[in-house]
This record gives sequence, structure tokens and C-alpha cells, in this order.
Amino acid sequence: MGGLETEKKVMGWAAKDATGHLSPYTYSLRNTGPEDVYIKVISCGICHTDIHQIKNDLGMSRYPMVPGHEVVGEVVEVGSDVTKFKAGDVVGVGAIVGSCRNCHPCKSDIEQYCNKKIWSFNDVYTDGKPTQGGFAESMVVDQKFVVKIPDGMSPEQAAPLLCAGLTVYSPLKHFGLNKSGLRGGILGLGGVGHMGVKIAKAMGHHVTVISSSDKKREEALEHLGADEYLVSSDGEGVQKAADSLDYIIDTVPVVHPLEPCLSLLKLDGKLILMGVINAPLQFLTPMVMIGRKSITGSFIGSMKETEEMLEFCKEKGLSSMIEVIKMDYINTAFERLEKNDVRYRFVVDVAGSKLSP
Amino acid sequence: MGGLETEKKVMGWAAKDATGHLSPYTYSLRNTGPEDVYIKVISCGICHTDIHQIKNDLGMSRYPMVPGHEVVGEVVEVGSDVTKFKAGDVVGVGAIVGSCRNCHPCKSDIEQYCNKKIWSFNDVYTDGKPTQGGFAESMVVDQKFVVKIPDGMSPEQAAPLLCAGLTVYSPLKHFGLNKSGLRGGILGLGGVGHMGVKIAKAMGHHVTVISSSDKKREEALEHLGADEYLVSSDGEGVQKAADSLDYIIDTVPVVHPLEPCLSLLKLDGKLILMGVINAPLQFLTPMVMIGRKSITGSFIGSMKETEEMLEFCKEKGLSSMIEVIKMDYINTAFERLEKNDVRYRFVVDVAGSKLSP
Repeated sequence: MGGLETEKKVMGWAAKDATGHLSPYTYSLRNTGPEDVYIKVISCGICHTDIHQIKNDLGMSRYPMVPGHEVVGEVVEVGSDVTKFKAGDVVGVGAIVGSCRNCHPCKSDIEQYCNKKIWSFNDVYTDGKPTQGGFAESMVVDQKFVVKIPDGMSPEQAAPLLCAGLTVYSPLKHFGLNKSGLRGGILGLGGVGHMGVKIAKAMGHHVTVISSSDKKREEALEHLGADEYLVSSDGEGVQKAADSLDYIIDTVPVVHPLEPCLSLLKLDGKLILMGVINAPLQFLTPMVMIGRKSITGSFIGSMKETEEMLEFCKEKGLSSMIEVIKMDYINTAFERLEKNDVRYRFVVDVAGSKLSP
Repeated sequence: MGGLETEKKVMGWAAKDATGHLSPYTYSLRNTGPEDVYIKVISCGICHTDIHQIKNDLGMSRYPMVPGHEVVGEVVEVGSDVTKFKAGDVVGVGAIVGSCRNCHPCKSDIEQYCNKKIWSFNDVYTDGKPTQGGFAESMVVDQKFVVKIPDGMSPEQAAPLLCAGLTVYSPLKHFGLNKSGLRGGILGLGGVGHMGVKIAKAMGHHVTVISSSDKKREEALEHLGADEYLVSSDGEGVQKAADSLDYIIDTVPVVHPLEPCLSLLKLDGKLILMGVINAPLQFLTPMVMIGRKSITGSFIGSMKETEEMLEFCKEKGLSSMIEVIKMDYINTAFERLEKNDVRYRFVVDVAGSKLSP
């Protein structure tokens, strides 16, 4: 373990400014501390949040920034206190690489709600250095924020589960909606929505895809395995299906009417919001009161839920629809993702890409 | 039991048109059927919903209409299949006097969510006749929708519990918020809000009254026993109390901002809406997602919860703040209630009033 003393030079692809254009960038990783896992990246998924960050949409971006928070890699080296992992293990890292460990959420194993959580990139680590994400040769991550990828699951299949999959799995589990026989709705069929259909079907649910247009009907029913398809502006169809769904996962990231969703929910049904929208949504109070419905939301998931979710996906043989690309295609991929031109997740084959200029 | 065969003439006070002015009105009650309880009214509370109905605010009013749905009375006679009650019992009737008995809500003992529920007044009973409420000499009500008033609880104290009290108790029970040690907020200090403070305190909660102005501070803290008082527009105060409340009961019946409430809720906190508002409310999705908060609502409560709630109030010695009036004051009382000029609930001493012209 002689490597523990050496700071590592690493090559990644970084945005240098708010144009969001990624290009090769060399930086250093901290030494592998006692609790750290040093990981050689194999695959990394592209999430819509990456775009918000590289383009400074939220006004909090620091450059150079290496994005990527759906990371699968191989363990190269572990710190002296690491017992969960050993060199050669295939592991995953998601959106969070640190938390305070002392607050109520941390002590309740829902560290994603810790106010001092540290993001995988575009954040500052406890040593004062910037965190950098998975579009890079390697990462050093505290073992608490590393999960084992189940044997037999391919790295490119595992990658999108670490954010998109977890984001859907966590609220279904938390709200007691992970039992079979329920009727669920998925509003919006992007990266998270597609995963929503897959995971809800794997849980044994009857799944209705709800969309603003008829365009994705065949895709949803024929290719993703949804049971029904409903256009949200089809008043008659919504009326016919009123009071029929136990939950709706709402993945739409722009302002949209909630009336159709609230109307589709049955007594005690839950509308679970996943889209960070910077303008207000509206609703009428009787639509939640008469039926004791809830408008709620959820935010990624915990490390514990990540482990559970991966095992669940392994057991159910769940596979996501991905388009595997090389790193030199990443800027084009971001452009296409902005136009929703992907079925349904880009995953970068990092280990198989030439990272240097 | 010779009276079972005779249709009863009864004197009540009815609105004759949308002016909402109440005046004496004679009508007939159905014979006491096998499942029916014939009740001589003692007290009846005035709820804000009565105003909406007599003034046709919802466009669904039928006249003549005898309002009143917080009714306490004495059993005069019971039908042949009635075993729960006997003549002389003091009983209560709330907002609902019928439901289908076969749907999911009915079979789950939450008949208030039955789509075929029958309102205590301004509705049509199974025999095709209009239902009439509690501002009258007597009522005939199916035993399922009658509750026993606990021994020792005065009729005028019990009356406001049957709608206002139940409306607050039901969601606290349903959402698992009826355990001691929680921190609750009550937004708006009218009839329901005042009852919210009383019931939440009786449950052992730390109660913050949240109001749009400073006007009710002394009232809330000195007279109602609230622990804290917060003005919703006081940004600094709201900021200081952020993430501190397990729930907020929102009784405000007009459009208002939800941001202060959502901000005050802690992780997994619930905003429980009780005001039927005919214009939309707004919220930002990150305010529910980051903290997994819920915006939900609730609608009166079940008969089972009514029984529980009355026992709870008896046991805790809960008393509400009421102004007891005679029937000939009722039109003035409605006017004052519209201006929130009452601490906090009018209760009509029906038995002690002259009902005839």
C-alpha cells in the first residue's frame, strides 16, 4: 500500500466556464486516507443535472468542473480502515461523497437530507479542495459513499441506477409504495421517467405513462413495457381514469398543470415531484383535501437505499435503455440531451476512451 | 314506541333564498325507521361552511335550507334495530348523515370520503326528501351517523367538536401526528384554528400560532395556551424557526403564500390544508423535494374518529372558547362570523330558544 502517501495526478474532462464545453483537464486527487477508496472509473452516466451545473444555471458553479455523478469503477487501492472493499471490486459512486454524520438525517441513514452534504463535484471537500466527478480516470471517495455493484451487473447498466434509478426507488420505498399490485403513474418519459417505468414494473405495479403528447405511446407500451398511456390534456381519458392511481412520479422539469395528476390519484394517493422547477406550480386545495391526497417530493436517495436498489435491480434482471458513448462525444451528448434526443440515458465508456488531448 | 308510525312536524330556522337570512320554517321529518334515532336538538354550533351554503357560494344550494351540522341533542325515540342508543342519551350529529356503505372508504371506516355521502343539510336523503340541519327542534338520523356524547361533557362544549374539532383531530390521527412531543404550527386563528391549538396542546405538542399579523399574539399566548407566535411575513422570525415543525395545520380560507409554511416544516413535515379556496395556491418544487415535505389536506373525519376525538377531549378536559346565543340572534351571528368577530365559535342554545315566530 505504498501508494497511500502519493498525491495522484489525474486526467478528466472539465468545463472551464459557463459555456459548459468539456475538454481535457489535469488535476490532483488527495492521497488515499484511512477511510478512502481509490477507484479507476469504468463508466459514468450523464444526468440532466450535469448540464445545469456546467452551464451555471443555478449560479453556484465553480470552474474548472469535472461533472459526472453516476460513476462505476474498479477499486485500485483502499485506506487502512476500509473493510467493506478491496482492490478489484467493482463499485459505484453517486451524487454525494460526504455528510456531517451527526445530524438527524445522518443518524437516520438518510444522509442525502444532511444540510452539510458534499456533492460529488462542484463542491468543496473537507480538505478544502474542490470535488471532481466521474468523467475522469479515477476518484478518491470515502468508503461510506461507495457501494458494491452486484456481481454480474455490467458497469454501463449500473451507472444510471446510481442517480436516476435511486431517485425513483427511494420515494417508492420511503412512502411504502414498493409492494406489488399498486397502480402507478409516470409523468414524463426522460432519463428518470424511463427508469421509473422499469422500476415500477419490476415492483409488480400496473404502470400508466402520462405524457403531454401522443408521441411516445408506442415507445412506452411496446418498448418500455408500460401498461397504459394517457395524454394529460385528454380530458375524457383523464376523467375515465380518475381516482385510479396510488402514486404518480412527476419527472417533468418545467412548469405544468397538476390538475390531471391530482385527479388521477385515488384516496390517499401521492404525487411525487422530482423536477427542480424555478417557477411555481399551482393547485386547488379541494383537489388535495377531498381524497386526502399529497403533493410531495423526494431528493435522490440514501447509501442504504442505493445498496438495496442495486440488489433489487439485480434480482429483477432490470436493464435500462442506454446509449454508450466515448468521452470525445460528450459535448455532442450534452447537446442532444438538452433536446431530449436520447433513449434514455447516455453512459460514457470512460475506461475505453482516450482522455488526454 | 307508538310514535314510529307518525310523520313529525318540526320547526326550524331556514334560509329561503341566497340572501342567507334565516327565519322560522315548518317542515316534516321522516318517521323513525328501524335504524333511525329521533333527536331533540339541544345545541348547535355555527361553522363557516353554513354561511357558504345559505348564501349559495358554491352554486349548489336548495331552499328552504335549515343549516347546522354541529348538533348535540337528546334521544327521544329509537328505531327497532337501534341498539347503540336509548331515549334520554345525549348524542351528536356532524356534517354527514349517510354514505353508500359499500365503497372502499365506507368499508375502511372513512365514510367521509365516500362519493355518495349525504350531507346533514342541503342534500337529498335516500327517501328523496331534502336533509335539514340542526337549527331546528329535532332531527331524525341513521344510527351510524350518531355518536354518544361522553358523560359530563356539556352540550354547548361538545357541539363545536363535531365539525371543527373533528376536522383537526382526524388528520393528526391519520398522519401519525397524535403522539406527544411533536412541534406543530397552526396557521390562522378562527374557529378551526382555535380548536387546532386546543387539540394539539392536549396531544402534548409544542404549538406555534402562525398569523398574518401581530394582532392575535396576546390572545394566542395568554388565552389559548400556544407556546409561540410567529407572523408569517416576518422573514427573520421564519428563518430562525426554519425546519422546526413536524406539521402545520393551515386553516386559512383565502389565497396565501405557502413559502413560510414549507420553510418552517422539518424533514418529512406535513402542511395540512383545511381551507376550501377557490383560487390556486402556489409553491416551488425544491421546497417540498429538499426535505421530502408534503402538502396535503384532509376533510372532516369519520364517525369512528368522532367517537375517539370526543373521548380524547373528555379525558383531557379540553374546553373550547364559545359564545352561546339564542336562535333569534343567528342572523347577527352569521354577520359577525363573516367578519371573524367571534371568540371562537358561536353555539346556538336551541333548546332554550323560542323557535316559532
